[in-house]
Amino acid sequence: MGKARLEAFSDGVIAIIITIMVLELRAPAGSNLSDLKPLVPVFISYLLSFVFVGIYWNNHHHLLHAVNEVNGTILWANLQLLFWLSLIPFVTSWMGQHFLSPWPVAAYGFVLFAAGISYYILSRELIRHHGEDSMLATAVGKDAKGIISVVVYLAAIPLSFIYSWLS
Amino acid sequence: MGKARLEAFSDGVIAIIITIMVLELRAPAGSNLSDLKPLVPVFISYLLSFVFVGIYWNNHHHLLHAVNEVNGTILWANLQLLFWLSLIPFVTSWMGQHFLSPWPVAAYGFVLFAAGISYYILSRELIRHHGEDSMLATAVGKDAKGIISVVVYLAAIPLSFIYSWLS
Amino acid sequence: MGKARLEAFSDGVIAIIITIMVLELRAPAGSNLSDLKPLVPVFISYLLSFVFVGIYWNNHHHLLHAVNEVNGTILWANLQLLFWLSLIPFVTSWMGQHFLSPWPVAAYGFVLFAAGISYYILSRELIRHHGEDSMLATAVGKDAKGIISVVVYLAAIPLSFIYSWLS
Amino acid sequence: MGKARLEAFSDGVIAIIITIMVLELRAPAGSNLSDLKPLVPVFISYLLSFVFVGIYWNNHHHLLHAVNEVNGTILWANLQLLFWLSLIPFVTSWMGQHFLSPWPVAAYGFVLFAAGISYYILSRELIRHHGEDSMLATAVGKDAKGIISVVVYLAAIPLSFIYSWLS
Repeated sequence: MGKARLEAFSDGVIAIIITIMVLELRAPAGSNLSDLKPLVPVFISYLLSFVFVGIYWNNHHHLLHAVNEVNGTILWANLQLLFWLSLIPFVTSWMGQHFLSPWPVAAYGFVLFAAGISYYILSRELIRHHGEDSMLATAVGKDAKGIISVVVYLAAIPLSFIYSWLS
Repeated sequence: MGKARLEAFSDGVIAIIITIMVLELRAPAGSNLSDLKPLVPVFISYLLSFVFVGIYWNNHHHLLHAVNEVNGTILWANLQLLFWLSLIPFVTSWMGQHFLSPWPVAAYGFVLFAAGISYYILSRELIRHHGEDSMLATAVGKDAKGIISVVVYLAAIPLSFIYSWLS
Repeated sequence: MGKARLEAFSDGVIAIIITIMVLELRAPAGSNLSDLKPLVPVFISYLLSFVFVGIYWNNHHHLLHAVNEVNGTILWANLQLLFWLSLIPFVTSWMGQHFLSPWPVAAYGFVLFAAGISYYILSRELIRHHGEDSMLATAVGKDAKGIISVVVYLAAIPLSFIYSWLS
Repeated sequence: MGKARLEAFSDGVIAIIITIMVLELRAPAGSNLSDLKPLVPVFISYLLSFVFVGIYWNNHHHLLHAVNEVNGTILWANLQLLFWLSLIPFVTSWMGQHFLSPWPVAAYGFVLFAAGISYYILSRELIRHHGEDSMLATAVGKDAKGIISVVVYLAAIPLSFIYSWLS
């Protein structure tokens, strides 16, 4: 199977995820500059999530670039990644309402961590389908970036609690 | 007519359906882990619907793969399938709020059943257009999977009532 | 300029329009079959609008099929059509809440009428760009279907008032 | 890297932005023509934003037309433009609720200004990648249109305050 529809569907889902988060940015009741103040944490959460989803889209773009064809397992590995990305608007909204509270931050970290794992699974599945000697395997390399980001996201979860206990 | 726009439009609609369901997952008012508890049935409904819509996208992908061209009847058969899929967010939301209540579960089963029938009609329409001896007809086979899933969905409706009566 | 992006963008906007209308179908508070009853007019409005938007997508598909290239004027004629189509969820929602009330029905008719006019302008613009002797001009023919539907939509507006006065 | 997915993703995001703004147009509680009156400023804001986003899509279409390939920097310059465009529904909603109030108008002007700057950065990045002698550089020209619109948007911010002080 060709990769065209996998790319088109992923582009559609990621485009919607990155855009519906802005629906959380509700227009304030008043018309003064100070009325925007309570929106600052919501805005920071939105910006952070926009950057994260943007990173995933960029990485997805690079990863699929060297891909020649896909199979059923790859379609599902990709859907799994999209599932975790689709939870980002939810955890962004929760974190935006309870800025720097430990559980919302931990939930945010957990979703990013799960997305990182899913991305890693997708890249392994693609390499297995194309062969370890393929151009794709070389391009992905040891996927150091993927492993590092998974570790970082994982670490962010307990760190959010430590931060909370310290303060 | 080529199939490119039919695929692109279907990808767009299915991508939106699979993503707007997450809007039902509203961030809880509190910031504790226990505040997520009332969201568990909503989350399970979302996961279930994500998997179902994902299955339809995968099947749609496989079905259209062997298609060479489409006509007006096929466009409408496809729109009919998209219509039933578009009702999944509604029944998911109802079932998420009334978890395991008989009528919401029956409505959910009915929509999945109607989507199964529509998918079957679309595949028959495609085979008729390409000929019973075409590669497409061979690929779809006797469409056993489609028939079985229609029966399963159909059975789920009365079963939900039996379940309710038993408990 | 090629027509690929015009098609992709139109597919995206129409896919979103046809899908966000389902957000009006809010899950009822109760879990009985009778709780669905107040949703019947909303559901009928949704079904009607789904069919109308589906017709426009089908027609758009047929119209663009014979097109070779587009220019700036055509891009804007297309955007104008998308603008009127984007108002369909709004008038659908109003009509769903006030079923058969004269003004909501008139507003619905007006938006469909304006979309019909915009579609006609787009088809004329495309014919002018390709020449009256082009394959496109022949395919569109005298655009009888377009003229008739414009008249029908136009007629629906006063008719909705007459209906209201009679009852 | 090819430009196909960059175009597809941008089309998706812009299609969603231009369409979700209509969700602000909530159906009025009553069914009379006069019930639409409070929606007039919301409607004007929607129309204005539809035209602005339409202009950006048109310009984006023209800009990418002459592009042969993209790199990582261009992907991020494009995401930055999409970020600012994604804030248009928010400022449209605020301005629609507080029509001609200085701060909402200033916020609207600021977002359009930032989008103008981002568009300029994207076009410079594209020219740098293709070379100053490329067909793209010639096509974009001195990007006079871009510079002018940036100045106009910038000017609109203080002007909104002067307008407010005058009245």
